[in-house]
Amino acid sequence: MMTSEKLLKQIDFIKEIDKLKYIQRRTKLFNSDRCENNAEHSWHLALMAIVLAEHADESVDLLKVIKMVLIHDIVEIDAGDTFIYDNEKAHSNTEEERLAAKRIFGMLPEQQAEELISIWEEFEAGATREAQFAKAMDRLEPLLQNSSNNGGTWNEPGVNYDKVYAKKSVIKDGSPVLWEYAESLIDDGVKRGILKKS
Amino acid sequence: MMTSEKLLKQIDFIKEIDKLKYIQRRTKLFNSDRCENNAEHSWHLALMAIVLAEHADESVDLLKVIKMVLIHDIVEIDAGDTFIYDNEKAHSNTEEERLAAKRIFGMLPEQQAEELISIWEEFEAGATREAQFAKAMDRLEPLLQNSSNNGGTWNEPGVNYDKVYAKKSVIKDGSPVLWEYAESLIDDGVKRGILKKS
Repeated sequence: MMTSEKLLKQIDFIKEIDKLKYIQRRTKLFNSDRCENNAEHSWHLALMAIVLAEHADESVDLLKVIKMVLIHDIVEIDAGDTFIYDNEKAHSNTEEERLAAKRIFGMLPEQQAEELISIWEEFEAGATREAQFAKAMDRLEPLLQNSSNNGGTWNEPGVNYDKVYAKKSVIKDGSPVLWEYAESLIDDGVKRGILKKS
Repeated sequence: MMTSEKLLKQIDFIKEIDKLKYIQRRTKLFNSDRCENNAEHSWHLALMAIVLAEHADESVDLLKVIKMVLIHDIVEIDAGDTFIYDNEKAHSNTEEERLAAKRIFGMLPEQQAEELISIWEEFEAGATREAQFAKAMDRLEPLLQNSSNNGGTWNEPGVNYDKVYAKKSVIKDGSPVLWEYAESLIDDGVKRGILKKS
């Protein structure tokens, strides 16, 4: 038999993205000291999207949201994870990430490469309902984790209520209901003394 | 504000399934000695399904396939991982797994619990196109991993060509094209001396 060139490209991509399992995030698993990696994180966001879809502001294309959260961090295989409260390095759409998207998704047959790059760009731009809901998942998961871990990354230097509130407020664009819940978690963090007011 | 009871149930489920990140599989990451955990595994299968969907025998409902692979191992939070070549303990649908499905998915609001239990049962039964394609992903990933790891779990006692061939042949039901490729990997394993013929 001859395995088609197309299938071999797809298999090469499948092998390459295994590397996402080695990219450590700053946030820890629930009630834990163990860092989460990006593959685990992406799996969790996909299940959150499935379970929480009804809270999206307007109805969303769930399959597209799931594709977004499953692939959103793949560029970090080349570009590395950026801590959300890092002032030095902006998180969104650096040139390094664009090149990574081109290289990694570019391993796939042309049409699939284009589709996944386009979905990743749509997520990064955050302008569509799907991207906004996907981003809401991406912000809500570490909020739940920090809340379970006596503050978690809220304890890192330079992180305070204002910064957390600003970063998390994008949840509102994806789901006012989830934002109301997220706000209550942030307020609760201040009350419990695990999130500094200033 | 009052967070709805429904949302609180969904959040409790989201926290509970974090435990899947601690369930270690027998297979290792690609070119690696590090065991894969079930959350990473499920993420990888979902992306394989997205990338390989065109090779499904008949067209499949991709969203359903993705839901299947994302949730298929959640019962192992209670029931633990069973090694596929274990003769003592059958893998499929033990009473322990049924109880786990009821407990864990049962944390969700009723309608969602029913939907996810039904999708999990459909996967386990393996009778629909979606279940067959999802199972093909679940069998293909460790085949790729073992092939990259000088045999990996093929080196464990009692594992040989016949057993591997029998377990992997369900890939054929999901995709004849992928089965042809899988067969070539198994044959190659024998030629390379990393899979015992008997």
